[in-house]
Amino acid sequence: MYIVPERAIADLMTRAAAFEAVEKVFAAMAAGDAYNFPVVREALGHESALYGFKGGFDRAGLTLGLKAGGYWPNNLEKRGLINHQSTVFLFDPDTGKARAMVGGNLLTALRTAAASSVSIKHLAREDAKVIGMIGAGHQAKFQLRAALEQRSFDKVIGWNLHPEMLPNLAEVAAEFDLPFEAVGLDGLREADVIISITSSFDAILKADQVSPGTHLACMGTDTKGKQEVDPELLTRATVFTDEVAQSVTIGEAQHAVAQGMIAEGDIHQLGAVINGAHPGRTSADQITLFDGTGVGLQDLAVAASVVELAVQQGIAIEVDF
Amino acid sequence: MYIVPERAIADLMTRAAAFEAVEKVFAAMAAGDAYNFPVVREALGHESALYGFKGGFDRAGLTLGLKAGGYWPNNLEKRGLINHQSTVFLFDPDTGKARAMVGGNLLTALRTAAASSVSIKHLAREDAKVIGMIGAGHQAKFQLRAALEQRSFDKVIGWNLHPEMLPNLAEVAAEFDLPFEAVGLDGLREADVIISITSSFDAILKADQVSPGTHLACMGTDTKGKQEVDPELLTRATVFTDEVAQSVTIGEAQHAVAQGMIAEGDIHQLGAVINGAHPGRTSADQITLFDGTGVGLQDLAVAASVVELAVQQGIAIEVDF
Repeated sequence: MYIVPERAIADLMTRAAAFEAVEKVFAAMAAGDAYNFPVVREALGHESALYGFKGGFDRAGLTLGLKAGGYWPNNLEKRGLINHQSTVFLFDPDTGKARAMVGGNLLTALRTAAASSVSIKHLAREDAKVIGMIGAGHQAKFQLRAALEQRSFDKVIGWNLHPEMLPNLAEVAAEFDLPFEAVGLDGLREADVIISITSSFDAILKADQVSPGTHLACMGTDTKGKQEVDPELLTRATVFTDEVAQSVTIGEAQHAVAQGMIAEGDIHQLGAVINGAHPGRTSADQITLFDGTGVGLQDLAVAASVVELAVQQGIAIEVDF
Repeated sequence: MYIVPERAIADLMTRAAAFEAVEKVFAAMAAGDAYNFPVVREALGHESALYGFKGGFDRAGLTLGLKAGGYWPNNLEKRGLINHQSTVFLFDPDTGKARAMVGGNLLTALRTAAASSVSIKHLAREDAKVIGMIGAGHQAKFQLRAALEQRSFDKVIGWNLHPEMLPNLAEVAAEFDLPFEAVGLDGLREADVIISITSSFDAILKADQVSPGTHLACMGTDTKGKQEVDPELLTRATVFTDEVAQSVTIGEAQHAVAQGMIAEGDIHQLGAVINGAHPGRTSADQITLFDGTGVGLQDLAVAASVVELAVQQGIAIEVDF
């Protein structure tokens, strides 16, 4: 049994490896080779923590297991620990024996970034030049870094509820030698690709603040009640997601579906585009929208990838379990 | 983070420690201090395996985590591994960080045995002399050993669908210097305590094969459709369980409840008897029946106990995770 501790992940895992793992598992999901188990999510009534399990099985990649963990809102203030804490456990699908235990904190950030990045590869216009960010927190930096590798962008623009956080985006833009510009929401009309990564419970972006031809990746909505964009936008866009069942219940599409503006059948799996079963973008002025809800299989895929790297590089701790 | 591998459990864990852990967590459940999370259970469509997670949180014992694993029916034949494979993962409820990883195979056997044993302590007549077993497989030996410590039994009797397995029971009886007698089902009228531990899908024991004053522990029924005793028996008995929600859906009581013979409100938590909130047995000719369905909190409790022992004895493998 292998252990890859949290502290080892940063040096091991690359954005490219995360991208490849997530792209492959999205494709396996759409092909019916991989599926997610029901999510367990519990408010513990202790330290105000949310805790749960996201599991799944990828028959193609032979990846089985779960991510366990959650959100401890007092960690940082009380103990100097990050508030999101998770661990991934992998099992041998042939025997049921534990195969690996992997720190899940950085992996979660990387797999979430990889998801919007995969959507950009497969859905954004090839000639996309301006990327717009809604949200400028810790996770926004991961999303932006991964996105910038997918097209020849020449400018980053961004909006955040708290403008004092915008330097986070400017910092990443500078890493890629790109200019950054803070904009109002109307300014996002200039963007060819927009990523929203907030914890908003109200629509931030209005439908008419999005230009024809734009690809949007809505990455913040992962719970009932959360919302980042005007549901009207989903009627104008071709809508894709990681998992339709989550999209209509806890994802960005929950609102448009609940209001009868779109139906579940209007939402397509991104994996189907990867597999070639869905054409994806078919015109330059089409709006595409990826509703990234986050599934357990993404966590398992990046964890399996990092275990492989750790074993190759002799960094995995081997335990006779 | 501590690791206690499967191979270390046998030397570390005692029946007494398992008993204490399970008794305490049943009490915590009845007091509202501990609860089980929804169970995830999936047929993988690979190696005919059943896989899932049973999690919970005990606010009193500060035990948080899950057991992950399941049933791989080809393990023994194909690979010489046991078919039931599970691992327990404990988390620090104050921070969400992984605290321990523990082999769950032997622990599952011990916690299941401890449950019927706790029910005997709190519900069987003090003067019980004859213990009857229905089922004589691998797990029956664990149940019998734990049960024999709870009263001054002077005889073991037993029935099994395949009589060639009855020597399993005779062997355990001999460990305690007790005689063993194979009986027909009618012969179980002699028993003061009966434990059923089978994988039956039909009622084995009829209501009139149980004498007044008997305590029954039905331990085999943990799935919709399974059944060990005549539902009529549940109308004659005072019924107790580990968790009412499981008892009425996947436990022995599912049939009596579905047929309207008893109501959910007729089923009491064993923990309430431990806590003194329910009187338990109130007369010598009362039949008591414990419906042991098996909950994640039992697994967490015995795992926490074995981690403590392993750390004390310097056997736990410490990993800087």
